[in-house]
Amino acid sequence: MKISEFIQSVQWKKDQLILLDQTLLPEETVFLSLSTIEEVWEAIRFLKVRGAPAIGMAAAYGLYLGVQNNHENNVSTFIEDLEKKSDFLATARPTAVNLFWALKRLKERAYQEQKQGSNVEVIKKILLKEALQIQEEDEKVCRDIGEHALSLFQDGMGILTHCNAGSLATAKYGTATAPFYIAKEREWNLKIFVDETRPVLQGARLTTWELQQAGIDVTLICDNMAAVVMANQSVQAVIVGTDRVAANGDVANKIGTYTVAILAKEHKLPFYVAAPLSSIDLSTPTGKEIQIEERSEDEIMVGLGKRIAPQGIRVYNPAFDITPFSLVTAFVTEQGIVYPDKAGQYSSKLQNLK
Amino acid sequence: MKISEFIQSVQWKKDQLILLDQTLLPEETVFLSLSTIEEVWEAIRFLKVRGAPAIGMAAAYGLYLGVQNNHENNVSTFIEDLEKKSDFLATARPTAVNLFWALKRLKERAYQEQKQGSNVEVIKKILLKEALQIQEEDEKVCRDIGEHALSLFQDGMGILTHCNAGSLATAKYGTATAPFYIAKEREWNLKIFVDETRPVLQGARLTTWELQQAGIDVTLICDNMAAVVMANQSVQAVIVGTDRVAANGDVANKIGTYTVAILAKEHKLPFYVAAPLSSIDLSTPTGKEIQIEERSEDEIMVGLGKRIAPQGIRVYNPAFDITPFSLVTAFVTEQGIVYPDKAGQYSSKLQNLK
Repeated sequence: MKISEFIQSVQWKKDQLILLDQTLLPEETVFLSLSTIEEVWEAIRFLKVRGAPAIGMAAAYGLYLGVQNNHENNVSTFIEDLEKKSDFLATARPTAVNLFWALKRLKERAYQEQKQGSNVEVIKKILLKEALQIQEEDEKVCRDIGEHALSLFQDGMGILTHCNAGSLATAKYGTATAPFYIAKEREWNLKIFVDETRPVLQGARLTTWELQQAGIDVTLICDNMAAVVMANQSVQAVIVGTDRVAANGDVANKIGTYTVAILAKEHKLPFYVAAPLSSIDLSTPTGKEIQIEERSEDEIMVGLGKRIAPQGIRVYNPAFDITPFSLVTAFVTEQGIVYPDKAGQYSSKLQNLK
Repeated sequence: MKISEFIQSVQWKKDQLILLDQTLLPEETVFLSLSTIEEVWEAIRFLKVRGAPAIGMAAAYGLYLGVQNNHENNVSTFIEDLEKKSDFLATARPTAVNLFWALKRLKERAYQEQKQGSNVEVIKKILLKEALQIQEEDEKVCRDIGEHALSLFQDGMGILTHCNAGSLATAKYGTATAPFYIAKEREWNLKIFVDETRPVLQGARLTTWELQQAGIDVTLICDNMAAVVMANQSVQAVIVGTDRVAANGDVANKIGTYTVAILAKEHKLPFYVAAPLSSIDLSTPTGKEIQIEERSEDEIMVGLGKRIAPQGIRVYNPAFDITPFSLVTAFVTEQGIVYPDKAGQYSSKLQNLK
C-alpha cells in the first residue's frame, strides 16, 4: 500500500468538513459531513475527531464554518463574532493545546487582514486558506518527524507505542506512527506492539486498525502487559505522541504514558516522544501547570458495551498523565532529534527550537 | 458492618453447598443451593466458583455430596464409589491444583478411617468434618495474613491492589484484601484503589464489589492509572496476592502485577505480596521455571461485550507475569512478615518457613 492511499481522518471537501468518526472504529468506517460550528464542537467534544493535530485542523475548519455565513459589512463586528465563535470552540476540550493554537492562528490572520483593510469576504477566504494551510503543514511536519524518528530505529526492531498518535490523529502519517509508515515504504519489518489504552481503547481500536490497513506487523496487548514484552525483549524502544510538552520537557499525553516511560526506564529501553513544535508550549513552565482533564466514570464503567463494575463505587478517570522530562530519552520534532543537555535538562534545547 | 456479616462465596448450610454465582457479579447477587455432585461439577466447570482456595472447598463439599446417600455396608465398595466420584469432580477444571489437593485430602482421610475399621456412616461424617475443616483452616490463614498485613498499614492510608485476591476467592477475608476487612472492623478508614485488571477485569468486577459490600472506601482505576495515584500520593502502599511464589521469591501473579511492582519502586512505595504458605513452592527454583499460560485472544478482543480491535491483527495475552523478588518489599504469610535478608535475598527466609 502506498502512503498516498491512506485513509485521511480530516478532509475539507465542497465547503464541508469531512470527518472519519473515530468513535465507531474499528467496526464501522463512517465519514461525517459537518457544515456548522456546533457540529464541529460536538465532534471534538465527543472524540469523533481526536489527536492533537486533527483537533487543531478540525477547529480551524470549524471556526471558518462558524463565520462563513456572516455577511456583516463592519469588519470589527465580524472580528467580534469570530472571537466569540473561537471562545465557544475552545470549550470543547480544555486540555487540547492544538485547539487553542489553531484558533489563535486563524484569529491572528484575521487581525492582520483587518489592519490591512481587507473586507469581511476577503478575510473569510483567507481564513479558509489558512485552515487548509494548517493541514498541509501538518502533513509535512509528520513526514519530517517520521524521517528523523526512523533514524533511531533499525530494521527488525520491536517498538511499543501507546494510544493513537497515528495517521488518524493528524493530516497524514501521524507523529509517533510516522516512522512505522516510512519504514513500511522502505520495506523494513518493524514489529509494532500497541497498548490497548484503557479506558477509551484508542490503541486497540485505532492504532491497530490504521497500521493493519497499511500492512504493518502489529500486535495488540493490554496496557498491563507492556512490562512483559519489554522483559522478554520483544520490544527495543518506545515511541509515543504528546498532547503538550511543557517548557522544561515534561510531557502531557494519554493516561498510561507515564507508566510506559517508567517501564522503559526499568528495562533500559529508550523512550522517545514524537513532538511537533506546535505541541511544545513554552508558556507552560512544567507539567505541574498542566490541568489534567478528569472524564466521566462511564468511560470506564460502561464504555465497553457492558457494565464492568458495581454501581456506587468511586471511579477515578484522569484522561492524561504527566511524564517528567527525566524519563524522556529524546524528543523527535520536525526539526530533528532533541536530546537533553549535559545536565540532563531540556529547557534551553526546547527554547532554541522556537 | 461486622466481618461475620460479610458475604461468603462458599458456605455449608443444612446439608447443602451454598455458592455465590461469581459469573453474574457485579450485576446480580445469586446464591446457588447445590445438593448433588453433578451440580458442584458444573459450578466449578463454568467458573461459578473461582479462586484456588474456594475451588478446593467447593470440591471437598461436592465430594461429600457425591457419597452422602451411599448407605453401602461394605467399606471397600464405598471407598471405590468415593474414588469414582473424586475422579469425576477432578475433570471439572483440569488445571486447578487446589481441586486435586482437596479431593486427595478427603480420600486420604477416608483411607485412614478404613484402616481403623470405621463404618461407612462414620466415614461420611468424618468426610464432612474434613471439608468443614478445610474451610476453617483457610479462614484462619486469611485472618492471620490480614492481621500481619495490617501491622504494615496505618489508619487513613491509601492502598492499591490488583486483581482479586479477595474474600470471594477464599473462605473469608481473602489474602491481599484481608487487612482491608480487619481495618474496617477496627473502624479505620483505608482508601483502597483497585486496578480493573485487564483483560478479565477481576478487579473491576469482583474486588470493588466485595469491598463495597463491606462498606470499605473503594476507588476503581484502569491499570494504566496506577502510576498517577502513586505520583499524586493517593496511595502509600501496594498489596497483591499470588498464584505461586518460587523458592527465590519470584512471584507469579495475575498479568499486570509486575508493572505495579515497578511503579511502586519508582515511587518509593512498599510492594507487599500476601502469600499463604500453600502458595510458596520451594520445588520451583525461580520465576523462569514457571510456565506462563497464554490465553485466548477473545478475552481481550471481545470479552467486554463488544469487539474492541479489528479482526486479523495479532494479539498477545499472557495470563500471568513474574515479578522478580528484588521488587518485593516483603511477603505477608500466616506466620508473619518475611523481609529479604541483608543480601536482599529471600531464599533462606522462605525455606525456613516450611
